[in-house]
Amino acid sequence: MLSVDELETPAVLVDLDVLERNIERMAERARQHGVRLRPHAKTHKVLEVGRLQLAAGAGGLSLAKTGEAEVFAAAGFDDIFLAYPIVGADKARRLLRLADRVRLRVGVDSVEGAATLGDVFHAAGRRLEILLKVDVGFARVGVAPEAALAAARQLVDRPGLCLRGLFTHAGHGYLRDTPAGVAEVGRQEAETLTSLAATLRADGLPVEEVSVGSTPTARHAMGVAGVTEARPGNYVYHDASQVSLGTCGIEDCAMSVLATVVSVPAAGRAVLDAGSKTLSSDPLRPRPAGHGWLLGRRSRIERLSEEHGVVAVAEAESFRVGERVRVLPNHACVVSNLHDRIFAVRGDQVEAEWRVAARGRVD
Amino acid sequence: MLSVDELETPAVLVDLDVLERNIERMAERARQHGVRLRPHAKTHKVLEVGRLQLAAGAGGLSLAKTGEAEVFAAAGFDDIFLAYPIVGADKARRLLRLADRVRLRVGVDSVEGAATLGDVFHAAGRRLEILLKVDVGFARVGVAPEAALAAARQLVDRPGLCLRGLFTHAGHGYLRDTPAGVAEVGRQEAETLTSLAATLRADGLPVEEVSVGSTPTARHAMGVAGVTEARPGNYVYHDASQVSLGTCGIEDCAMSVLATVVSVPAAGRAVLDAGSKTLSSDPLRPRPAGHGWLLGRRSRIERLSEEHGVVAVAEAESFRVGERVRVLPNHACVVSNLHDRIFAVRGDQVEAEWRVAARGRVD
Repeated sequence: MLSVDELETPAVLVDLDVLERNIERMAERARQHGVRLRPHAKTHKVLEVGRLQLAAGAGGLSLAKTGEAEVFAAAGFDDIFLAYPIVGADKARRLLRLADRVRLRVGVDSVEGAATLGDVFHAAGRRLEILLKVDVGFARVGVAPEAALAAARQLVDRPGLCLRGLFTHAGHGYLRDTPAGVAEVGRQEAETLTSLAATLRADGLPVEEVSVGSTPTARHAMGVAGVTEARPGNYVYHDASQVSLGTCGIEDCAMSVLATVVSVPAAGRAVLDAGSKTLSSDPLRPRPAGHGWLLGRRSRIERLSEEHGVVAVAEAESFRVGERVRVLPNHACVVSNLHDRIFAVRGDQVEAEWRVAARGRVD
Repeated sequence: MLSVDELETPAVLVDLDVLERNIERMAERARQHGVRLRPHAKTHKVLEVGRLQLAAGAGGLSLAKTGEAEVFAAAGFDDIFLAYPIVGADKARRLLRLADRVRLRVGVDSVEGAATLGDVFHAAGRRLEILLKVDVGFARVGVAPEAALAAARQLVDRPGLCLRGLFTHAGHGYLRDTPAGVAEVGRQEAETLTSLAATLRADGLPVEEVSVGSTPTARHAMGVAGVTEARPGNYVYHDASQVSLGTCGIEDCAMSVLATVVSVPAAGRAVLDAGSKTLSSDPLRPRPAGHGWLLGRRSRIERLSEEHGVVAVAEAESFRVGERVRVLPNHACVVSNLHDRIFAVRGDQVEAEWRVAARGRVD
């Protein structure tokens, strides 16, 4: 078995003890609340991690893109929710093929978008299960709560479609400065959605599913009666942003990037072989600050080029060329998408090399 | 032959007419100045584009990572400069294998880093050609100009190494606000390096190569007598940052991202199926502003999630679900690294699908 010291850098490491604990804790939390956990697998895009999530009790996976679902479906995953407004006839035909092998649900947020999907399914004598996306404050996709009833009425009778419920994603939790603020977003997310579900049901519309998202808000949203499903993704790995948001401690972060100091060209400066091609240029949440944390060091990664992480060396610290460091990334999900493989480690031992099977599936 | 309209989105397009013109123009500029053009292929990571560059007269390629060089070497490219401080015995052994099949040069900026490479080559009875990196103001890697003589003296007699010259990269040109400022950085870059070369030669040190980098500064640096090689990369595609810097016009940008409007959830907002997983979260240079330009539109991409590009719709413009748009990215090089394939188009026809063969080679 390889030891971590033998890996070439940069390399993405996932600590198995932490990963397993994160997966178990979130599964247990969902069990306690009687909510189905359907993790968003975009965070890892790794078949082996998805299997660990199912083994711990997750009821299917969430994904964003059709191509990602195709990868997981081909590997035997049989219950997938595409939590994204899938649009267009080409994609509808791919969804039709996917629906042959998996229990598939798809997000919609417009009648125009949904109609194309419905037409393709209807022509094949089939119906596609859809969930209507509601915007609870993130201002990205989703119908406004006050527009949800009208949208659901239009969708429910649409040929080729079968409306199953509502879903949301409280991404604005990532912008709140305090854990209390994040908790408030989570409760609001769930309360808005459950209240809307009641309104729609009173109107005779079928709302079986009330599905909420996001790692920082999951614990708060799950506790609201009426929520049936939660779709956190990042919790498997966590990252510097989750620590900053108060979601977890550094000890709960499973992913780190092993890097080598390739240059110490001047006093106060060291350069790592991990830049934006390895760590991404995503900012720290909730407030931008640096490009990942050097574990066990006070020095900061103050800027990135594609292949360089430039470290502002703290007083009383020093780095030497060839030395190895570990970086806790700002945002784990985007790191996954940059790498073909990651290394599953336990202590100093590399237990497995995992392929990031659904990496780069953009469409 | 496919038309662009038949491609699924998001998709990265490269306009062949523009690509060919960009390649030819830079090659011609280098010829006029009597400078070897050694383009940095990190921008495209595509074998076919590298072949076009060589066919137009480039004398070899530049790359950053050992793994990238391995991909190009395996495809028959036989003259490669790794313009990056390669560190460590594992990588040195890979360089030794590479040196069996290509004329290889490697950047160094420390005696410690270089010594490890030299030891491995010396043990094999070989010598590795090295260029010393000099920092001309970017403050990333490279020895300070005043430290270059001492470093070169230490390197020149080191077993297993063969000092060939000096190189630099004026990345700080990307931070200058005006074309005149960029030009000044380019001239300073070249003048610092040629003057240093003279100092080293007067000391009896061999400095055959004086190699400069960067697309915005290339035209200015090439004109300085004594420069032997230029390593611009981005010029093959250009991007919104190059336009902002005054390097080129929009009509000189070969790469665009074809995207679909997947949601128009509220007045003033439209959402594309291209987010940071497709466009990257790299900022616009020289001043951050938005996340790529919507070609032919005044509306702005004001924020990105991984799979969402959120457009602030300009007054008098509108978008509908299913509509297609093209985005000029902030930074073309990082877009290449996010995609397994790109589409080479001429007008509305897709002439080829190219694999981004060296994508994701982080080590």
